[in-house]
Amino acid sequence: MTGTDAAAADALTDLFGLLAYAELVAFFNLSGDAALASSLEDKAALGEMAVAEFGHFRALHGALTRMGAVPETAMRPFVAPLDAFHARTAPADWLEGLVKAYVGDGIAADFYRAVAELLEPQAKALVLEVMADTGHADFVISRVRAAIEADPPLAGRLALWARRLVGEALAQAHRVVAERPALAGLVVGATDEAGGQGDIGRMFARITDAHDRRLAALGL
Amino acid sequence: MTGTDAAAADALTDLFGLLAYAELVAFFNLSGDAALASSLEDKAALGEMAVAEFGHFRALHGALTRMGAVPETAMRPFVAPLDAFHARTAPADWLEGLVKAYVGDGIAADFYRAVAELLEPQAKALVLEVMADTGHADFVISRVRAAIEADPPLAGRLALWARRLVGEALAQAHRVVAERPALAGLVVGATDEAGGQGDIGRMFARITDAHDRRLAALGL
Repeated sequence: MTGTDAAAADALTDLFGLLAYAELVAFFNLSGDAALASSLEDKAALGEMAVAEFGHFRALHGALTRMGAVPETAMRPFVAPLDAFHARTAPADWLEGLVKAYVGDGIAADFYRAVAELLEPQAKALVLEVMADTGHADFVISRVRAAIEADPPLAGRLALWARRLVGEALAQAHRVVAERPALAGLVVGATDEAGGQGDIGRMFARITDAHDRRLAALGL
Repeated sequence: MTGTDAAAADALTDLFGLLAYAELVAFFNLSGDAALASSLEDKAALGEMAVAEFGHFRALHGALTRMGAVPETAMRPFVAPLDAFHARTAPADWLEGLVKAYVGDGIAADFYRAVAELLEPQAKALVLEVMADTGHADFVISRVRAAIEADPPLAGRLALWARRLVGEALAQAHRVVAERPALAGLVVGATDEAGGQGDIGRMFARITDAHDRRLAALGL
């Protein structure tokens, strides 16, 4: 293996470790949201989405094992930043939980899509599978829009909440970029069409733009 | 449909509604326990078990729909007693959560096994599938035994906890028996080899005996 190959393998292990831990935590958060849902129908619907996230975790865990990595070791560098993000953005209620799941899914999907383009076919297929829609977006949009119709001042509170979420996500993303240079190189390459040195700031700006469009879909 | 057939169909709807809600709550509790596990390996292992419980919920939900019942309506009578049980037995820590999952799984399995014998083949197959081992028992036994070896006085606290769990479970079971006579008739018939009027007290005594044997396996 050349030095470049080894660096690429490290970056992919980092990427899958990050995604695996993110999916595991998404599973915990969604099942927690499901437990708090007021109707049995919503509990079951959110439970299904949580189980879909766990399926993604399982796929990434398997891929890491096949790559010769220890999945837990690959995930470990990302436990602190992801846990810090979630600790700083604990939803105060069910609607904040839904908005958080929606915003988080959206940012994750943008990120996966950009990165997938850079990967070899097998890794690309896995990343695209893992970002597959879990039906979350439609469920959240309908519930949040209905809540805002019933209580219009909610829109302001939820819009502020969504902005706080993206701010906290970017803060932790900067931390990961600083601590994991191989992963940062992979991700920046992915969003840099010129194929040059890349620009972390530009990538984050694109993610923020896409986030704003999603908030509009929510009515925020 | 004769009156007896209608009563039997009601009893089966009740049984599947009870089991479905119990599995849904088991999913929430296990995924909550998984989130609290200290190692990534344990988080993943408990997450797998939680997902298996959700699969059981999905199977029962589907069976209720095929029987012409509305699953949420079938589950609703059992929400209050099961929620009361869980509210009165919130684990204080990770080990209490493990013991609770183990004890709850064991009681549920005894109950399913007894009831399954009374059902027609398709319903029987579903009940036996749903009670299939999720790998929980071995995981819990190894973790609890290791914790007691490291800190022997734990055994006394966990033994008291397990006794409290079975007491609270029986209290709620008596409530369900009083409120759902058709279900009670089905279940009592299931444990009464003479096929007569049955004896709720005798059934509960058998469940308590089996519980004591499981505690011995845990080292309690």
